[in-house]
Amino acid sequence: MTIKPWKILKSRYLIRDKWLTLRADMCETDDGTIIDPFYVFEKSDWAHVVGFDDEGRVLIVRQYRHGSQTVCAEVPCGVIDKDDVSPLEAAKRELLEETGCVAERMECLGVFYANPARQTNRVHSFIAFGVKKVAEQNLDKTENIEFEFVDLQTLMSLIDTGEFAQSLHISSVLLALRKNGLLDKI
Amino acid sequence: MTIKPWKILKSRYLIRDKWLTLRADMCETDDGTIIDPFYVFEKSDWAHVVGFDDEGRVLIVRQYRHGSQTVCAEVPCGVIDKDDVSPLEAAKRELLEETGCVAERMECLGVFYANPARQTNRVHSFIAFGVKKVAEQNLDKTENIEFEFVDLQTLMSLIDTGEFAQSLHISSVLLALRKNGLLDKI
Repeated sequence: MTIKPWKILKSRYLIRDKWLTLRADMCETDDGTIIDPFYVFEKSDWAHVVGFDDEGRVLIVRQYRHGSQTVCAEVPCGVIDKDDVSPLEAAKRELLEETGCVAERMECLGVFYANPARQTNRVHSFIAFGVKKVAEQNLDKTENIEFEFVDLQTLMSLIDTGEFAQSLHISSVLLALRKNGLLDKI
Repeated sequence: MTIKPWKILKSRYLIRDKWLTLRADMCETDDGTIIDPFYVFEKSDWAHVVGFDDEGRVLIVRQYRHGSQTVCAEVPCGVIDKDDVSPLEAAKRELLEETGCVAERMECLGVFYANPARQTNRVHSFIAFGVKKVAEQNLDKTENIEFEFVDLQTLMSLIDTGEFAQSLHISSVLLALRKNGLLDKI
């Protein structure tokens, strides 16, 4: 491996508030090239939950996303807070808050980078089995989330037609289908 | 569908340079809640190329990513420039620049959002067949990219061990394996 990390010669924060931490680094590559500024977003890790009910249907949510200015179909997800004991607990909390559902069993599918070029954070993808509704949603004032269980054919059709178009979530879904031995069905 | 887009009441640019366009919106949700600021990154679309050679091996690259401060295994990818005639042309250009390879045939697997919560841009995922090396790499001064063809087993092992950990790229890879009828092999 001849690829070396860049050295950070200087670093300053341009924005550091509740919603965004934006850092500008002055970097030096292995061959001495200076890159200045290189912007990095320091972000908390995220958790995704790909949940199956006892009939093998997958739990999806729909919400407005202001970056794309579209309503996106996706899986329950959220930021892993400092108050969360673990990524698993964060995933359980998000599942319950966004859909009122709990799972009989959850397992981590892997930990991935959301965008390692500019973001520090990772995605912890979980598969959940035996998901069922036990409570009402508990949403933030700015959240409006609809949810439903869909069969595999419907899920793949949402992906193929672009209604379920979050690439990071598609990754979690396909890894969950692999884990659950369902890839030959799609 | 009861989910309504937010209204943008005001909008201002905080950073608008060669590398980053950061916008702060004052938004109003459907029930009148004000969200201010909501940060949005206006970004150009990206292209991914999941390329197969005639032996069914997949072309991967490795490069240093400064957000994660790690060397990442991934697929050839890049920004779709204003000068690119189309996403397909951008994908061909990136494939050639990063690896010196061309493809006999390329096909779009879909267009997805990279992070619709805060980013405007989309990922155009391509599958490429008959990929072969015809030239030397043509890299920017700050780029240092290694590439190799790996068999399917190796590719999945890189994903499972976390060496190939870019979630957006995993999505493109798995969709390409689906397109190529290889999901029963992983």
